[in-house]
Amino acid sequence: MKLYDLPASPNARRVRIFLAEKGLEIPMVPVNMMTGENQTDAYLKKNSLGRMPLLELDDGSCISESMAICRYIEELHPSPALMGSGALESATIEMWQRRMEFEFLLPIVNIFRHTGEMWKDRMVQIAEVADQERKTVASRMEWLDSELNGTQFIAGDSYTVADITAQCSFVMGKAALGIRIPAGLKNLNDWWNSVSTRPTARV
Amino acid sequence: MKLYDLPASPNARRVRIFLAEKGLEIPMVPVNMMTGENQTDAYLKKNSLGRMPLLELDDGSCISESMAICRYIEELHPSPALMGSGALESATIEMWQRRMEFEFLLPIVNIFRHTGEMWKDRMVQIAEVADQERKTVASRMEWLDSELNGTQFIAGDSYTVADITAQCSFVMGKAALGIRIPAGLKNLNDWWNSVSTRPTARV
Repeated sequence: MKLYDLPASPNARRVRIFLAEKGLEIPMVPVNMMTGENQTDAYLKKNSLGRMPLLELDDGSCISESMAICRYIEELHPSPALMGSGALESATIEMWQRRMEFEFLLPIVNIFRHTGEMWKDRMVQIAEVADQERKTVASRMEWLDSELNGTQFIAGDSYTVADITAQCSFVMGKAALGIRIPAGLKNLNDWWNSVSTRPTARV
Repeated sequence: MKLYDLPASPNARRVRIFLAEKGLEIPMVPVNMMTGENQTDAYLKKNSLGRMPLLELDDGSCISESMAICRYIEELHPSPALMGSGALESATIEMWQRRMEFEFLLPIVNIFRHTGEMWKDRMVQIAEVADQERKTVASRMEWLDSELNGTQFIAGDSYTVADITAQCSFVMGKAALGIRIPAGLKNLNDWWNSVSTRPTARV
C-alpha cells in the first residue's frame, strides 16, 4: 500500500492526519503537479482525473478521494474510531464532516483557485467569486462558533474526521489566504487551539 | 422516523430514491422553502443551516446531509447494499459517489443558483460562473462516458448510491437547465436509459 501525496493540498493533509491519528505509517509518493507528474499516462491510469491523494493497494487497486481513502483505512484499522461506530454516531460524524467540507473546505479552495497565481493559466479566475466566498467563510465561522457552544470537538466529545476536515480548511485559509478566526469567536478559537496543537497536526 | 423533504431538490431526491431501492416507506414532511418554512425557529433547531433533506428519529435526533441520511439507512437496512460491503468495495463506491457529486451535482446546482430566478434575491449571481460550470459538465460527461466503457453502472456491476447521485444530477440538469447528454456519448446514454427507467427513478 502506498499513498500518492500532494504535500500542500488540504485533501492530502486530511489523509496524512487521519493516518497519524491511527498511528499508521505508509510509504508516500509525492506527486509534483507543477511539472505535470499527475498528467502522465501512468498516473492517469491510476486516477483518470489526475488528482491526489490516491491510495494504491498491493494488488494494484486504486482509491482516490480523501474521504474514500479514510473510510478504507477506518475499515482496516477501526481503532481509534475517527468515523464513529453504530448507525447514529457514524451518520452524525458524516453529517459534520460534510458540513465542514461544504461550508469551509470548498469555499476556501475556491478562493485559492480564483485568486492563486498557480491557477492563472489553468482556469478562468473570477475575482467576484473569491469575494463572495470570503463572506461565506466569515459567516460560517460565526455559525460554527455557536455550534461549538458546550462541545469540545466538531461532532461531539471525540476528535473525528470532521475535525480533521475543519482544521485542514483553516490551515489552508490561514497559510495561503490570510483568513484568521476572529478573536471574538471564543468557542472556535478554543477548538482551534486544541486541534492545532495535537501531535498529529503538522504531518 | 420522518423525512423533511424538499420535493424539487436533487439532494432530497437522492434520499427518496435510496429509500425506494431499499423498499422502505417513511413519513415525509414537505418543507416550503419559498415561504421560509425552513427558517422558522422550530426548523432551525433541527438543522441550524435550514436545509433539506433532514431525517428526524423517534428520539428527536436529527441527521441532515443526504449522504449521512443514506448511510444511517444503509446501516439499519443493509440489503440491498447501495454503499457496498467490505473495505475496498465500500471505499470504491464512496470514491465514485463523491466524483459524481463534485463533477456533476455541484456544478449543476451552481449553474442553477447563479442563473435561477428563485436565487436572484438570495445571493450574488455571477453569469460567468454558470458559463464555466456548463463547460465543466460537458467535459465531465465525455470523461464519464469513457469510464463507463464496459461497466453497467457507475461504480461497477451493481447499482449503487453513486448512480443515484449521478442520475439526480442529470435529472436536475435536464429539467431545470436544458442540459442533455450528447447523442454521441453512447455509454453514458446507455447508462442513463438503464437507470432512468428503474421503477424507483420517479419518486
